[in-house]
Amino acid sequence: MAPTIRIGIAGYGNLGRGVESALTQNPDMALVGVYTRRAPEDVRTLDPRTPVFAYDDLESGAAEVDVLILCGGSRTDLPVQSPQLAARFNIVDSFDTHARIPEHFAAVDAPARAAGTTALISAGWDPGMYSINRVMGEALLPEGDTYTFWGRGLSQGHSDAVRRVPGVAGAVQYTVPSETAIAAVRAGGRPALTTREKHVRECFVVLEEGADPDTVREAIVTMPDYFADYDTSVTFITAEELARDHRAMPHGGFVIRSGVSGEGNTQGIEYRLTLGSNPEFTAGVLVAYARAVYRLHAAGQVGAHTVFDVAPGLLSPKTPEQLRAGYL
Amino acid sequence: MAPTIRIGIAGYGNLGRGVESALTQNPDMALVGVYTRRAPEDVRTLDPRTPVFAYDDLESGAAEVDVLILCGGSRTDLPVQSPQLAARFNIVDSFDTHARIPEHFAAVDAPARAAGTTALISAGWDPGMYSINRVMGEALLPEGDTYTFWGRGLSQGHSDAVRRVPGVAGAVQYTVPSETAIAAVRAGGRPALTTREKHVRECFVVLEEGADPDTVREAIVTMPDYFADYDTSVTFITAEELARDHRAMPHGGFVIRSGVSGEGNTQGIEYRLTLGSNPEFTAGVLVAYARAVYRLHAAGQVGAHTVFDVAPGLLSPKTPEQLRAGYL
Repeated sequence: MAPTIRIGIAGYGNLGRGVESALTQNPDMALVGVYTRRAPEDVRTLDPRTPVFAYDDLESGAAEVDVLILCGGSRTDLPVQSPQLAARFNIVDSFDTHARIPEHFAAVDAPARAAGTTALISAGWDPGMYSINRVMGEALLPEGDTYTFWGRGLSQGHSDAVRRVPGVAGAVQYTVPSETAIAAVRAGGRPALTTREKHVRECFVVLEEGADPDTVREAIVTMPDYFADYDTSVTFITAEELARDHRAMPHGGFVIRSGVSGEGNTQGIEYRLTLGSNPEFTAGVLVAYARAVYRLHAAGQVGAHTVFDVAPGLLSPKTPEQLRAGYL
Repeated sequence: MAPTIRIGIAGYGNLGRGVESALTQNPDMALVGVYTRRAPEDVRTLDPRTPVFAYDDLESGAAEVDVLILCGGSRTDLPVQSPQLAARFNIVDSFDTHARIPEHFAAVDAPARAAGTTALISAGWDPGMYSINRVMGEALLPEGDTYTFWGRGLSQGHSDAVRRVPGVAGAVQYTVPSETAIAAVRAGGRPALTTREKHVRECFVVLEEGADPDTVREAIVTMPDYFADYDTSVTFITAEELARDHRAMPHGGFVIRSGVSGEGNTQGIEYRLTLGSNPEFTAGVLVAYARAVYRLHAAGQVGAHTVFDVAPGLLSPKTPEQLRAGYL
């Protein structure tokens, strides 16, 4: 019997709750506790028995965890927390600002190497599962095109970004694939499509009292990385409407590799997610990669890693022998 | 610029031709030649410039290849060739008799470790890509069920098995998923389905002159591993019908993981292949894994491996930096 992997959760929003829940489905792991910058007594965990500690306990070295799962946001939390905590712990994060991943990787790699810890950045489904399928699709079908479609679904990272805009009291953002674009790809003609042509972004925003709608709208649609390159709509709604109509967090979409082999044989690979809860699925990915980080660390693999560096078998609680006998 | 990876092809049927073709799409690799047990002058390669050598050149050590891709059949060729050749070369094979994979792994692992070579067995799409998706689906959604459907498509391994039955002059075998079973899985009810319930196997067979149809039919439908557990139909056709109606080699199907997270949120992962040419796609997988084997060997990872042991980034000709910047 393998030793139980001790997990800590740093930050307790939707994603942190998802990790707490996912751990109950993974009996080879145990939750040491939640670490929060809020007053610990103010945090209501899913399971009331889950210990809640102050974030400072992480910095003082009091936390006895094998792998720390960082559940903060990519815009302001993770760029600071991941490098800091990688100097003390094996970590997994879900940093999802695609354009800044090389920078984030370097910022985490240096302290992790110096401290001899193992870090895995940008886990989740995109970046994450979709990234793996983009790389493998191209490796298996070098002559072809790759298409990523998102949605229709609520994007946590983008909703978060909208919520941080001054004057915004609450918000959700839905990513919606363009039906025209999907049909063109499915037809096999390998069309050239810009990011703008493939998706629309829909924001539903509750304003703070006295906030100017035009200023808020402008701040959203011009936000780099998140919205500037998309057709973005902003609809202002009431707090009641937000609570009533936008509570579920579905998402999904697909990665398609459309290629050709030999004398013109068409070959298609499609990876599709249909997620009832985006944060809970992302949490499941983080937990599986925490298992891999634990094993990589035990094997002496220190420094920053991404999903591209992790063999599939490391994600499973089963042994290599079990996997070969039962899953190959 | 990375050095060119020198590839040899052992065995030259549909799969060997597919590998020859796939290598033209992978400029970081060069084909040293085809090694055949037939008289080399009798082998017609796709590219007439491709060198053809005698199989014995592999055993004499005259072949200068970095990775040898074995393109023989799983029933009689690979169980002998893979262990033998792993004692001299880094190898990739597509051994696809699922029930015998642990045995084949052990038979290859010992000579590879003794010789300090690197072997990857059972690459392709099933075993291979589907296996990866079975393992990852379960790791990400531990509470759920996994369903693998094949077809409708021509199965090389099963066609091969039928062709080896005494009295058979020619044959193809199609695997056909049951529409009823697919509908039940898609509905999300996580039904329990036996292998028999999920697929039907259709064989189209040309008899040798004087062969007894009933004896041939019986030998096919009772063949262990391949047909005994399925509803198998055998239809006898003429050599002309075989040539006219059964030349294409399409295949495909999908792996579905249907799971639940949190308080009953349904989560679905679907990996689907739509292949215009099964052997050409399998060949593309073998070539990508040959790149990984080359890198694993350079990193000192000797012995037998499976797709579960190979990180996705190792399959791509791109550097880790390129992958992080462009694909994550």
